[in-house]
Amino acid sequence: MTDTTPTPPTTPSLPTVPPPDVIRCAYAELIVTDLAAARAFYVDVLGLVVTHEDDHALYLRAFEEYLHHSLIVRVGAVPALSVLAYRVRSEAELDVAEAYYRQLGVRVERRPAGATRGIGAAVRVEDPLGFPIEFFYTAEHTERFTQRYDMHPAGALARLDHFNVNTPDVPAARRYYEGLGFRVSEDIVDGDGTVYAAWLFRKPTVHDIALTGGDGPRLHHIAFAAQERHQILHVCDHLGALRQSDVIERGPGRHGVSNAFYLYLRDPDGHRIEIYTHDYYTGDPDNPVIHWDVHDNQRRDWWGNPVVPSWYTEASDVLDLDGRVQKVVPRTDSNEMDVTVGADGFSYAREGDTSTGFKLGTQI
Amino acid sequence: MTDTTPTPPTTPSLPTVPPPDVIRCAYAELIVTDLAAARAFYVDVLGLVVTHEDDHALYLRAFEEYLHHSLIVRVGAVPALSVLAYRVRSEAELDVAEAYYRQLGVRVERRPAGATRGIGAAVRVEDPLGFPIEFFYTAEHTERFTQRYDMHPAGALARLDHFNVNTPDVPAARRYYEGLGFRVSEDIVDGDGTVYAAWLFRKPTVHDIALTGGDGPRLHHIAFAAQERHQILHVCDHLGALRQSDVIERGPGRHGVSNAFYLYLRDPDGHRIEIYTHDYYTGDPDNPVIHWDVHDNQRRDWWGNPVVPSWYTEASDVLDLDGRVQKVVPRTDSNEMDVTVGADGFSYAREGDTSTGFKLGTQI
Amino acid sequence: MTDTTPTPPTTPSLPTVPPPDVIRCAYAELIVTDLAAARAFYVDVLGLVVTHEDDHALYLRAFEEYLHHSLIVRVGAVPALSVLAYRVRSEAELDVAEAYYRQLGVRVERRPAGATRGIGAAVRVEDPLGFPIEFFYTAEHTERFTQRYDMHPAGALARLDHFNVNTPDVPAARRYYEGLGFRVSEDIVDGDGTVYAAWLFRKPTVHDIALTGGDGPRLHHIAFAAQERHQILHVCDHLGALRQSDVIERGPGRHGVSNAFYLYLRDPDGHRIEIYTHDYYTGDPDNPVIHWDVHDNQRRDWWGNPVVPSWYTEASDVLDLDGRVQKVVPRTDSNEMDVTVGADGFSYAREGDTSTGFKLGTQI
Amino acid sequence: MTDTTPTPPTTPSLPTVPPPDVIRCAYAELIVTDLAAARAFYVDVLGLVVTHEDDHALYLRAFEEYLHHSLIVRVGAVPALSVLAYRVRSEAELDVAEAYYRQLGVRVERRPAGATRGIGAAVRVEDPLGFPIEFFYTAEHTERFTQRYDMHPAGALARLDHFNVNTPDVPAARRYYEGLGFRVSEDIVDGDGTVYAAWLFRKPTVHDIALTGGDGPRLHHIAFAAQERHQILHVCDHLGALRQSDVIERGPGRHGVSNAFYLYLRDPDGHRIEIYTHDYYTGDPDNPVIHWDVHDNQRRDWWGNPVVPSWYTEASDVLDLDGRVQKVVPRTDSNEMDVTVGADGFSYAREGDTSTGFKLGTQI
Repeated sequence: MTDTTPTPPTTPSLPTVPPPDVIRCAYAELIVTDLAAARAFYVDVLGLVVTHEDDHALYLRAFEEYLHHSLIVRVGAVPALSVLAYRVRSEAELDVAEAYYRQLGVRVERRPAGATRGIGAAVRVEDPLGFPIEFFYTAEHTERFTQRYDMHPAGALARLDHFNVNTPDVPAARRYYEGLGFRVSEDIVDGDGTVYAAWLFRKPTVHDIALTGGDGPRLHHIAFAAQERHQILHVCDHLGALRQSDVIERGPGRHGVSNAFYLYLRDPDGHRIEIYTHDYYTGDPDNPVIHWDVHDNQRRDWWGNPVVPSWYTEASDVLDLDGRVQKVVPRTDSNEMDVTVGADGFSYAREGDTSTGFKLGTQI
Repeated sequence: MTDTTPTPPTTPSLPTVPPPDVIRCAYAELIVTDLAAARAFYVDVLGLVVTHEDDHALYLRAFEEYLHHSLIVRVGAVPALSVLAYRVRSEAELDVAEAYYRQLGVRVERRPAGATRGIGAAVRVEDPLGFPIEFFYTAEHTERFTQRYDMHPAGALARLDHFNVNTPDVPAARRYYEGLGFRVSEDIVDGDGTVYAAWLFRKPTVHDIALTGGDGPRLHHIAFAAQERHQILHVCDHLGALRQSDVIERGPGRHGVSNAFYLYLRDPDGHRIEIYTHDYYTGDPDNPVIHWDVHDNQRRDWWGNPVVPSWYTEASDVLDLDGRVQKVVPRTDSNEMDVTVGADGFSYAREGDTSTGFKLGTQI
Repeated sequence: MTDTTPTPPTTPSLPTVPPPDVIRCAYAELIVTDLAAARAFYVDVLGLVVTHEDDHALYLRAFEEYLHHSLIVRVGAVPALSVLAYRVRSEAELDVAEAYYRQLGVRVERRPAGATRGIGAAVRVEDPLGFPIEFFYTAEHTERFTQRYDMHPAGALARLDHFNVNTPDVPAARRYYEGLGFRVSEDIVDGDGTVYAAWLFRKPTVHDIALTGGDGPRLHHIAFAAQERHQILHVCDHLGALRQSDVIERGPGRHGVSNAFYLYLRDPDGHRIEIYTHDYYTGDPDNPVIHWDVHDNQRRDWWGNPVVPSWYTEASDVLDLDGRVQKVVPRTDSNEMDVTVGADGFSYAREGDTSTGFKLGTQI
Repeated sequence: MTDTTPTPPTTPSLPTVPPPDVIRCAYAELIVTDLAAARAFYVDVLGLVVTHEDDHALYLRAFEEYLHHSLIVRVGAVPALSVLAYRVRSEAELDVAEAYYRQLGVRVERRPAGATRGIGAAVRVEDPLGFPIEFFYTAEHTERFTQRYDMHPAGALARLDHFNVNTPDVPAARRYYEGLGFRVSEDIVDGDGTVYAAWLFRKPTVHDIALTGGDGPRLHHIAFAAQERHQILHVCDHLGALRQSDVIERGPGRHGVSNAFYLYLRDPDGHRIEIYTHDYYTGDPDNPVIHWDVHDNQRRDWWGNPVVPSWYTEASDVLDLDGRVQKVVPRTDSNEMDVTVGADGFSYAREGDTSTGFKLGTQI
């Protein structure tokens, strides 16, 4: 359990120095309590490639990735996120990052090459949202298995796609990420100005980071991209065959936001993993931002299928740079789940809808 | 509303004369209250081919079918099923059918060619389960559009696959259908001997008819087969684009029973239509029968996704041969929904499971 | 090399006794010269399940099959087909088969249960076309891996679909197979009455056996069905990754005949294997027969892609019941390749076409 | 016919001023001789969305695009390419572009907003390779039909992906494009240092422009991206249904280079259109460059299927800024077709291969 003493989030004032030039989300490190169980999930079911493994950790990558890893799974005392890492455009950006975060007044650490296996020199910070964030450029290259189809399972994953985090104050978090050079592709709002979630990107996809309104800092999920939908469906079939259908938390389905086809799984420690495909190109400067009404029943699932409560309420704790679980600050704005589900079932698929049917408020 | 005065089902004693040689389920006729709304669903969304239409009815077929229709949608006062039709192997089987049902003691009618547009001489009966059933051999041929890919939409349907009906006493209904030469492929049972559902076939697929325990006679659904899963996913996307996601009742998903990939829709009158693909060949005499435990959480959805209550409780009324709504007889055995959902959530994915997670009893 | 002394085929006069009730094509046995190489192809690339293996043979099945095997690969001196086996409806059909073939005047042998591992008592004949054919009913059951998705590779095969053989006189061969109760679904003809190929079935698909005009008896190929096209594409990708693209002889493509999506491979001994999906239901008595003009450029490939010469000219020798290579009788009718390819390139895609472009006669 | 008087290409010396900041390839304009025939191809078969049409031109876009068009098809006297347009990051880049090309010494024109319907102010140049190139930022926005699945045909196209041009001197052309800020992802070379083709990108895919060694300047093709392979297969099926299989020039197949699944079509005037999906992310600065040996039989088709000669030899003429057909300069280096096909068939799938089979030199 985490300490949830309410420390109100502060809106960071942005630095006057330039932010580091982030290319994309690059890797995450998750703490798990049972490495063998985690291996059975990440390697045997999801089919991630093992770049390196030892008694303490698995260094994993997807088939189209050539850096050392996009996910580290490390054994520890309590399940948690230990770092989210962004790749910057060059080694010189590390100094830029250090200066930027020092001006932000948060904790900053330089890490020598090899402090994380396969990764060069890096800067780690506790960002203003409370997350442990790393910036790095140099990483060990490995073989890119794009065309090693002899190794691809039926549910092959292509690459890490994005991070999704819970944070209490989405507008504040959005301002922080925009300051870091991210742009918004889509968000979920209501008529009263409440922002429930926002999607921001550096690489030209819908997102590298999604900000989901909720008690935070917590990790909502990390997502891997597959090439086609049948690969995602196979992951479900595979889990069914293993009699582990309870690992499937939500989906498969089509998102309204991002248009991506999705699936949410829970690893043996409860960390949430999304498999994702078919979002769209966002790289032009005038890429239209899409605003979704929180009461639009198709925003989270284009087919109107219900979102399970656990998806709204459960998330992974995050560690500070000393490895201690960060305190969680409660969200004070309206929660998306509270305003969209329940006996009143006031979500709609069409503007003006009032009727409720089997899709609204009557799922078991 | 239907009269539900409980008339207990009687186990039919089987005739001593041979049954007609049924090839397969062939067509259904549904009564709808708004033909234009039905056309928007069956033609504009599902993409069924219109063989003929007039002010009263649509005669529809799927792309690989060459008989005049596999579905008639006819306008009427109340939504109902007016007939389920089986094709027999030859015209001579009509006499066999007549003799068989006369010995069964149910109502039997001969219908001249053209009594139904596109269909030759036929025998209609009120079967012992209370359903209006037709047997025919002769039918008008139309062009088979298998390779008319210029006409195929992204969600093209290939052919009618099966009927699924609610009947209170599944073992009795199964004996009746086995008497008619159908064989069981799969069923759902419990340790106390209760049979919740059974699947039976003539053509070598998992079923031509499924018997679903429930108040009956009612039509649970009719199903069309597609070739690949992406076509089913497109139907969902299409409905999302039309802001009609509430038409999607359940799925898409993978069935445990039949292994088919499925989607359940509700037409504007509430009739349930399934889109279905990837069941398996059952044509050998020793095809293994698969028994599913009603408490197996993966029997209805291989991925453990919940079944919405409406899927268990709602179904279409059926007409007698005079076009009057048949009385519905309540099921007296345990209902599948009652024993598998609710606060106790005693379904399991693995034999011996007791824990309940987000997949069991906590869906909204 | 085979002896090709021309022994003209005789049109068999059909027996007066009834033919055995064949359900479907059931298994083939291929002789290969290098069992390890064959295993690398059939098990490691195609992913067939090994029911049993020893130093002499592999007994293989696809994922939806529950009989002991649908393919035996046995080591021997020369690559050849040693038997094509049909399953009959009951053990009693063995006597029917024996009587039928004795009246046909061909060689007939009874085989005790276990003469072939996993197979019960059987009747083997040298059929009038010169092929070694087995009829059996009883076979050992194994686990049906339909839902063992944890075992399914990305190119999972579902079941044996059909045999395809070369025979010089297609009309005579067709009459023989129609006498055995098979029905024609499609054929390729020309305006002069020459029949180039015919497709015949017992189970309600396009074929259990295809008769391809050519020097015979030779085995053209055996085919396995997959569920979806991406599985067939993966087999290609897999072979590419192994740098064995030369194993891909023709395809992938869409057939005109049968409408199936196809791929032809050559095993290490040159035996041709097709992977096949998406043909159509043929089970009604009035299933329309489709006649293709041999000059229709889309008959063999719906997209007009060229057929490689090897596909027309190369095939596997067949053994007699003593294991000796059968003499091959040359075809005397026109050959499909001769009338459709070459400098004159007179195939067409549209009736009346005369122009030749990059698709006609100019492929390298 | 074009004037092919050999004017040797000159290696451009790069400007000292900065190049414009190109985002991506953005649109092409093709001259066709029959607008109705072109509409039948681009709109009725390919399903491109018509933003605007009149008697002279079609302005087309794919379903995920929100700018006014990605393809203009304009009627004219002779089939040709009239412009390839790149989008730059802002309006200010137009001045940068003008200065850059003026220093290059090529013809440069400013175009006012609306000179091309839907496009703002632009700079057009005759680039050093002889191509008519436009740079623009401002463009009219239209509805992005990403989720308008009710409008998506079975072969829906998502967005313009890349241009591919013939140019005689690939190393010189590559240096020119690298000067413009493009980076190489892959190339095809031989042991003697000959460069046969190179792929370069601005957006993080395998390419925005491919340079194919050959007589030039000519347009080899433009390519649209689809989301999944079944959509590409449907385009083939659709053309088969229209009895236009001769429109399919090459494929479908999997490229070695780029790993993309591909299909090449020829429009009614012979312009080549590729449909393309599944290349990979290239956006990191150290993205590994892949070099393919010209003798690797899997470089152009991962499955080893042959490349038709027309694909190597035929291409579209290009216009100068006055609308006159540019002179074509012959390639003087070795041609890829000459060194890879023919009776000697010295391509290989595996390093060291010498044997030739049905895949090498024996295709008809």
